[in-house]
Amino acid sequence: MTNERGTLFVVSAPSGSGKGTILSEVFKNSKNVFYSVSATTRKPRPGEVDKVDYFFIDKDKFSNLVESNGMLEYATYCENLYGTPRHEVEKKLNEGFDVILEIETNGAMQVREKMPDATLIFILPPSIKELRRRLKKRGTENDDVINKRVAEAEAEIRQAYSYDYILMNNELSDAINDFTAVLRAAKLENKKTKILIDEVLNDA
Amino acid sequence: MTNERGTLFVVSAPSGSGKGTILSEVFKNSKNVFYSVSATTRKPRPGEVDKVDYFFIDKDKFSNLVESNGMLEYATYCENLYGTPRHEVEKKLNEGFDVILEIETNGAMQVREKMPDATLIFILPPSIKELRRRLKKRGTENDDVINKRVAEAEAEIRQAYSYDYILMNNELSDAINDFTAVLRAAKLENKKTKILIDEVLNDA
Repeated sequence: MTNERGTLFVVSAPSGSGKGTILSEVFKNSKNVFYSVSATTRKPRPGEVDKVDYFFIDKDKFSNLVESNGMLEYATYCENLYGTPRHEVEKKLNEGFDVILEIETNGAMQVREKMPDATLIFILPPSIKELRRRLKKRGTENDDVINKRVAEAEAEIRQAYSYDYILMNNELSDAINDFTAVLRAAKLENKKTKILIDEVLNDA
Repeated sequence: MTNERGTLFVVSAPSGSGKGTILSEVFKNSKNVFYSVSATTRKPRPGEVDKVDYFFIDKDKFSNLVESNGMLEYATYCENLYGTPRHEVEKKLNEGFDVILEIETNGAMQVREKMPDATLIFILPPSIKELRRRLKKRGTENDDVINKRVAEAEAEIRQAYSYDYILMNNELSDAINDFTAVLRAAKLENKKTKILIDEVLNDA
């Protein structure tokens, strides 16, 4: 009866926002959500599996995809290219799955341009102070690295103004419930559902 | 830390859409939701309680409220006035409650003008055919009345295009979960939450 195409969700959050924990809980509880796998030109690390961790492809193939509009977004990081292949995302959406892209803010803006129906979600830490505390608690990095991460986080957070939904990960269980509610409610927004009005009126 | 003012929700749905059942389930499960009581100039019916079923007020008081911008919306029905007093709604919102107004589409448009932050939710029946079946099943009304109700429903449904969220009550349990998700997610929309970004960045 209704258009069963899935919804594309783009999720961004600075390091230390708890995004990974939230997403893994959401995936545990959602049957109909597909997590998009990125493509990269970097070499696989030990243990990494092609098509699971990344699509490992060479630079020529990556460039061809970019030129043929086959990448929803891409970026260079440490001289390697990373991107989201459009084909896999479109396929899953057409099969009725919701698709989640976990990408940075620049990539998110590229996706919005190519897929205006995408719903953009930003996860905020409670404060920069708390973000710094969480990064320190990991204990794996020195102060310089932490200062750099905090500065990067601030730059990302400044992009949050243009996201559709903004969540704060203060209490993890609340943030998980918030995220789950957004996944459900975004599909009921006027721009996605007004097509139903005609269907109802026509089935008289 | 954050602005704790509640959110105003306006719910409209034609007769036969199952709105009453959905709302009563939602109220059972929500601690923080307040159901707005309307004011009317009609006389109380046996068993009706002032301030519970309606604020029963006289025409002078009603007109004064309208003139002093004290009504969020109002309408005339069978020579009686019905409306939503602004004072009670504002009070509950300021106390941090979410407030639900269950009103017709004309009233909803008046509320949107006065309270642009309100979230408007429309509940659709699965089809006009199914709506007619539900109304007939009640068995209390003859065909002329049912035809009139269906025509009224169609007119209401045509207003649904301008609502923020549009739900279809096909399976009741799904509709309840949809409604609950919208109540939660609407509070996370950019227009309500972007204020948090500054708070996070400033708390460094």
